[in-house]
Amino acid sequence: MFHHSSKLQYEVRVDTPDPVFAKYLQQAIGGVEGEIRVAMQYLFQAMGARGDSKFRDMLMMTATEELSHIEFLGHAVALNLQTAPLSQQEAAAQDSVVGAIMGGMNPRHVLSSGLSAMPVNSNGVPFDMSHVYATGNIAADMLANAMAESSGRVLASRLYNMTDDAGMKDMLSFLIARDTMHQQQWMAVIEELGGIEACTPIPNSTPESHEAMEHSYYFLNTSLDEPTPQGVWTNGGPTMDGRGTYMAKEKPEPQGQKPDLGKAREGSGAQKEQM
Amino acid sequence: MFHHSSKLQYEVRVDTPDPVFAKYLQQAIGGVEGEIRVAMQYLFQAMGARGDSKFRDMLMMTATEELSHIEFLGHAVALNLQTAPLSQQEAAAQDSVVGAIMGGMNPRHVLSSGLSAMPVNSNGVPFDMSHVYATGNIAADMLANAMAESSGRVLASRLYNMTDDAGMKDMLSFLIARDTMHQQQWMAVIEELGGIEACTPIPNSTPESHEAMEHSYYFLNTSLDEPTPQGVWTNGGPTMDGRGTYMAKEKPEPQGQKPDLGKAREGSGAQKEQM
Amino acid sequence: MFHHSSKLQYEVRVDTPDPVFAKYLQQAIGGVEGEIRVAMQYLFQAMGARGDSKFRDMLMMTATEELSHIEFLGHAVALNLQTAPLSQQEAAAQDSVVGAIMGGMNPRHVLSSGLSAMPVNSNGVPFDMSHVYATGNIAADMLANAMAESSGRVLASRLYNMTDDAGMKDMLSFLIARDTMHQQQWMAVIEELGGIEACTPIPNSTPESHEAMEHSYYFLNTSLDEPTPQGVWTNGGPTMDGRGTYMAKEKPEPQGQKPDLGKAREGSGAQKEQM
Amino acid sequence: MFHHSSKLQYEVRVDTPDPVFAKYLQQAIGGVEGEIRVAMQYLFQAMGARGDSKFRDMLMMTATEELSHIEFLGHAVALNLQTAPLSQQEAAAQDSVVGAIMGGMNPRHVLSSGLSAMPVNSNGVPFDMSHVYATGNIAADMLANAMAESSGRVLASRLYNMTDDAGMKDMLSFLIARDTMHQQQWMAVIEELGGIEACTPIPNSTPESHEAMEHSYYFLNTSLDEPTPQGVWTNGGPTMDGRGTYMAKEKPEPQGQKPDLGKAREGSGAQKEQM
Amino acid sequence: MFHHSSKLQYEVRVDTPDPVFAKYLQQAIGGVEGEIRVAMQYLFQAMGARGDSKFRDMLMMTATEELSHIEFLGHAVALNLQTAPLSQQEAAAQDSVVGAIMGGMNPRHVLSSGLSAMPVNSNGVPFDMSHVYATGNIAADMLANAMAESSGRVLASRLYNMTDDAGMKDMLSFLIARDTMHQQQWMAVIEELGGIEACTPIPNSTPESHEAMEHSYYFLNTSLDEPTPQGVWTNGGPTMDGRGTYMAKEKPEPQGQKPDLGKAREGSGAQKEQM
Amino acid sequence: MFHHSSKLQYEVRVDTPDPVFAKYLQQAIGGVEGEIRVAMQYLFQAMGARGDSKFRDMLMMTATEELSHIEFLGHAVALNLQTAPLSQQEAAAQDSVVGAIMGGMNPRHVLSSGLSAMPVNSNGVPFDMSHVYATGNIAADMLANAMAESSGRVLASRLYNMTDDAGMKDMLSFLIARDTMHQQQWMAVIEELGGIEACTPIPNSTPESHEAMEHSYYFLNTSLDEPTPQGVWTNGGPTMDGRGTYMAKEKPEPQGQKPDLGKAREGSGAQKEQM
Repeated sequence: MFHHSSKLQYEVRVDTPDPVFAKYLQQAIGGVEGEIRVAMQYLFQAMGARGDSKFRDMLMMTATEELSHIEFLGHAVALNLQTAPLSQQEAAAQDSVVGAIMGGMNPRHVLSSGLSAMPVNSNGVPFDMSHVYATGNIAADMLANAMAESSGRVLASRLYNMTDDAGMKDMLSFLIARDTMHQQQWMAVIEELGGIEACTPIPNSTPESHEAMEHSYYFLNTSLDEPTPQGVWTNGGPTMDGRGTYMAKEKPEPQGQKPDLGKAREGSGAQKEQM
Repeated sequence: MFHHSSKLQYEVRVDTPDPVFAKYLQQAIGGVEGEIRVAMQYLFQAMGARGDSKFRDMLMMTATEELSHIEFLGHAVALNLQTAPLSQQEAAAQDSVVGAIMGGMNPRHVLSSGLSAMPVNSNGVPFDMSHVYATGNIAADMLANAMAESSGRVLASRLYNMTDDAGMKDMLSFLIARDTMHQQQWMAVIEELGGIEACTPIPNSTPESHEAMEHSYYFLNTSLDEPTPQGVWTNGGPTMDGRGTYMAKEKPEPQGQKPDLGKAREGSGAQKEQM
Repeated sequence: MFHHSSKLQYEVRVDTPDPVFAKYLQQAIGGVEGEIRVAMQYLFQAMGARGDSKFRDMLMMTATEELSHIEFLGHAVALNLQTAPLSQQEAAAQDSVVGAIMGGMNPRHVLSSGLSAMPVNSNGVPFDMSHVYATGNIAADMLANAMAESSGRVLASRLYNMTDDAGMKDMLSFLIARDTMHQQQWMAVIEELGGIEACTPIPNSTPESHEAMEHSYYFLNTSLDEPTPQGVWTNGGPTMDGRGTYMAKEKPEPQGQKPDLGKAREGSGAQKEQM
Repeated sequence: MFHHSSKLQYEVRVDTPDPVFAKYLQQAIGGVEGEIRVAMQYLFQAMGARGDSKFRDMLMMTATEELSHIEFLGHAVALNLQTAPLSQQEAAAQDSVVGAIMGGMNPRHVLSSGLSAMPVNSNGVPFDMSHVYATGNIAADMLANAMAESSGRVLASRLYNMTDDAGMKDMLSFLIARDTMHQQQWMAVIEELGGIEACTPIPNSTPESHEAMEHSYYFLNTSLDEPTPQGVWTNGGPTMDGRGTYMAKEKPEPQGQKPDLGKAREGSGAQKEQM
Repeated sequence: MFHHSSKLQYEVRVDTPDPVFAKYLQQAIGGVEGEIRVAMQYLFQAMGARGDSKFRDMLMMTATEELSHIEFLGHAVALNLQTAPLSQQEAAAQDSVVGAIMGGMNPRHVLSSGLSAMPVNSNGVPFDMSHVYATGNIAADMLANAMAESSGRVLASRLYNMTDDAGMKDMLSFLIARDTMHQQQWMAVIEELGGIEACTPIPNSTPESHEAMEHSYYFLNTSLDEPTPQGVWTNGGPTMDGRGTYMAKEKPEPQGQKPDLGKAREGSGAQKEQM
Repeated sequence: MFHHSSKLQYEVRVDTPDPVFAKYLQQAIGGVEGEIRVAMQYLFQAMGARGDSKFRDMLMMTATEELSHIEFLGHAVALNLQTAPLSQQEAAAQDSVVGAIMGGMNPRHVLSSGLSAMPVNSNGVPFDMSHVYATGNIAADMLANAMAESSGRVLASRLYNMTDDAGMKDMLSFLIARDTMHQQQWMAVIEELGGIEACTPIPNSTPESHEAMEHSYYFLNTSLDEPTPQGVWTNGGPTMDGRGTYMAKEKPEPQGQKPDLGKAREGSGAQKEQM
């Protein structure tokens, strides 16, 4: 069960409201790299967690933190919109080229939300929940979480660069820090489970008899003219799961047939010539 | 530039066509765990790759392989649909409860595609390209790729279990194997770049001055009644990036203000009582 | 800032797991009538609330409650999936017509989530955040909320009828009750603001000079053959906003011009014949 | 059956074409507050109407009117685009900062539609029909309609403020007026059905035995630190449905269990450590 | 401006209601091959039509007809749902395998619409307006329309086969007929404009100087192992636009460079190793 | 099976990087008129092709070419972004009105992709695979392909006009040329199959007994005040399928009943007043 306290997790200050930056900030709320995504991802992973309950607890605790991030980011967007133009006259007063602000801000920040945050990204595209990755496999989920926090910290760093506002920089430095911890935390779970070697290939519960293992450890060079790029993945050393050896296969031949579906059946809505 | 040869990368055989399984298989084509996603993800990552070109080459080579996976899975779906009912009479002939097949298969496999594969998932929801994750940061992208291949191998394993068809099991065992390699391969890139310690926090190019580092290494226990779950993430040991120490913070107090946006502005479309 | 306690807001019990009902229940999580929608809608309305802060507080408190509803519904879905078939053999064992369960459940409950809830509706369509209505106008928002709770209670009632499971009926009777309160509560806000007469037309801050008031109070009968349906809306009595009189206008004539855009411009990509 | 006459319902005049305002106007066509939504919503509600046929007739008549609104708004968008730049030279000639117009208008107004209206909102996001709310419950539908018209009138008022064009202001004043009537009209239906008391809780056909009525009338204060906001919803007076008394419940304790799904099943694609 | 008359364009009769067929029928309403699409496509094309107004008139007239098709199909769906199960008991009574109907019908036909049509396809995916193709180029639009009517007639023919209901077959035979005319009608416009030779390449207003005409008339055989398929497109005869000769080009060599984006810029959020 | 060679199909050169034009170019990658669409459309049509295999081969060969188009366009977008501002200082340095570039470019080109192409259109809306039209009917598919190439060439022509960059104009002139061929090529298939007369009505395999042919050849004038537009479609001549005569029908009367669904059923969630 959830509870709320009335203050924000972190202080939000905007020295100079900027409606174009408000549009950019939306990416951190409703973008695939944003806070709605991680809040919901951790919540759904927690609700589906099976096995040791401590992982469920961790997920729920961090889901709860991310909800608080949505909340203070939403406040930051609204503060950046406080002085946004509500009429063409105001827009003209704010820039020498009539239309640069009207054209550059998200129109829906005026038209739809009345100067408040929305659950959309910086293009105004609403977040859609297909980005909530929760597979029921804890290792796959931890990778998904580490990935989400990585793209989240990349985003926060870019936003940090795109503003000169001291208040916004302060808030973003907090987000950058928390994303650091969340990356470390999800990777620590993999460590706790024995590390990459024990955890992979994911899922580690698939019986080897279900796997055509002769195809499990070669890098396939599908290029007609490039040599195989060299690196750990081709160095003949042991694979990270400890089960094989990194190899390469060049200029592969097709192993299957030329596909042929024959003629179309009657009543299938095809042209007569296909039947 | 791309080229094609006429045979499939791997042989596809369906012993007993099954239109309900065809619906399930669609997840491997148009699901977020599926082949369109990885093909396009690696392609876009390759097109945006900066730095050492060998990573671009790797990405493009595997993108090309994934296109071949779409192709043989598409053939597998069509073969599973070869005998699907095209009329209510045929449906009735195929099951004792009129409607179990008509209700259980994807209607669009008859109505829209005429017994062929579609770029949709097992719910018939079309794949949407927002799931192509390509951040311009190679470490973040490698995590995204390892995650995609993990969910892909989880999916292939589940599909393997959901069919009794020997041909389908054979094809899926090949996919399981290739997903093994692709997991190993993307994690090998992280190894090549110095491993998790050197790569994290992602992005490793963010100056420390942009980060409120006093908030970078504590696990936040937002629960009112649960103790902090114990593990690597709280053991006081060094964090995986080598920059800090894992700590926990319980029953955190809000650090920010109670938000207040004041009154609504005139002309903002609010109610008079808000002004 | 948000907090969590480890127990559910309401007890969840499933006497007989039913994977088809799990699919139905998803509508209450990820449908437009469901709990993600109201949780996020109230959160975003709260974050954008201007004027008397008590409405902001109300919204945030109920947003928090709705998060708890997502949580126990998610548990209910997972419990209904506990015995869902993971192989065709299990599916066959569970029904006499092979495929009725495999065809009738949501395939992604096996393939994608591994027997857990997802943020999708009963068709497997992911929730998308465009359904979070938050206009910055408190009266419009209260109508949106009353509407959401109405469709929510309609849904809960229908789900109640579609199951025989005593545990599920108990849980749904709790949801029906809470939706009752939430309907009453949002309409109470309108009452607090002076009732429908004071609140409408929404927004009540639009100057009358911006409105072509000669068009504000007639019902337009656009039918060629039906008489105007009679009722409060045509009875010549005062309109609910107290500003006008309900009237009807039959067989309306167009008041505008026949549209004509002239010829296409050069360089516009039209056909020559259009230029 | 539908018919058409060649003139517009209302005259459309654009004194000074403005491609950025054309982008804004799109919200009134393809936004969730726009005309496609209400036209389709009323049409689908009419097609599903059961009970007294006069409500079906009303719905169809107003659906028809809304189609006419799409038509004249579409003309208004096209007129605003008549002089939009079709080349970078034209763009440069129209503003001193090369790119302000090219950056501020919707690119697809040139690239995709060739200077015509599109069924998208002001962010260029296509309207999606999930916003057509039609529940089969007339009271829920009337709230949905009143809400749609409220957000529609909020939008029209904001658009009115965002333009200086006399022709556009005139057209928008007509829309503001019609939205007034439509708000009044749908609320009149609720009045006709006995008013809020008789209509709520929606659906009023749910047997009381399906409702855990001990939970039906308290406001839940989920905050840890805020007192319950006072108002009609807590004043101890009768609820609007006449069935209960408004109460408040503070610092609620969870009533349910701590969720536990146990171990993952074999064959479910989880990690071994979860099994 | 639009008008309505109260009767349907065509009579709708359902002899034996069938909720699974109702799900299938939805494809003709909210599928990409369905009536919402063509109604809206023709409406938006009409609103953007430039040049001879007779084409605008044609488009609007047929748009109006398609609205009437939505209307009678919506009635057909509702009639097919008249006896659909509203409880698990009713579902059990209707089929010997509990769940075959509950699993096979669209759950939202009970849960969301209350036994009425919805603007969704046969997978329950809502129609989205990105499928309204209106380019501002009349020839491109006519091809889009002929295509839409072709897929529409394919769909209607498949639906005809999937039902045994005489009433439904009668209604579908009407749709098949109208789709015939609409195909003929849009192709007649191309004929009126001079036929394929005069109309193509579309747009025919692109100056030849904008086209690298040395690349305009060869079929590119990108296969490594298949000979060029022979046909009109390779027969050395004149192309249909009368401007060239059909040729083939085998085993094409890349004409461009190997792409290289160099190093990542500082502040771009990439890894240090990329910089 | 697919293969790749390391050079681009066509050379890409950008003389003056322009982040606003990068946004526009995205339409050619991820727009409905763009290259992802045709690549995937031809691939899925090929995978479902039944009948003479030469059409399958053609489709696959051109699908492969379109993949190469995605590749060089992706490079073009990245080159246009090479100097895009990564900070507000850089943005200010690049234009005299702070914000014109930040407002005019796609924010996600900085925030999400780090100066690289994305699978989105010029509004930042991700491509969704519902636009992959593949019906299983070869004639319908050829129309869909000719239409896609028509809108593609319209788009390329408009993009050609919107840039002054010689490198970009050169690349676009190549795309214009290839779209010319692809239009000619798909129409050549129709010719190969006997031309429009033999191919239509599509599908030509629908038995005439399934069609209410008395409704197959009249143009329906649904206008109340406009005469029937005259042209090939009304000239009394033979229809293009050779089966009928073009006719017109004015002021049509409804042929169906007034719809009536009666009362709502108990348990359906309607209001009592509807029952």
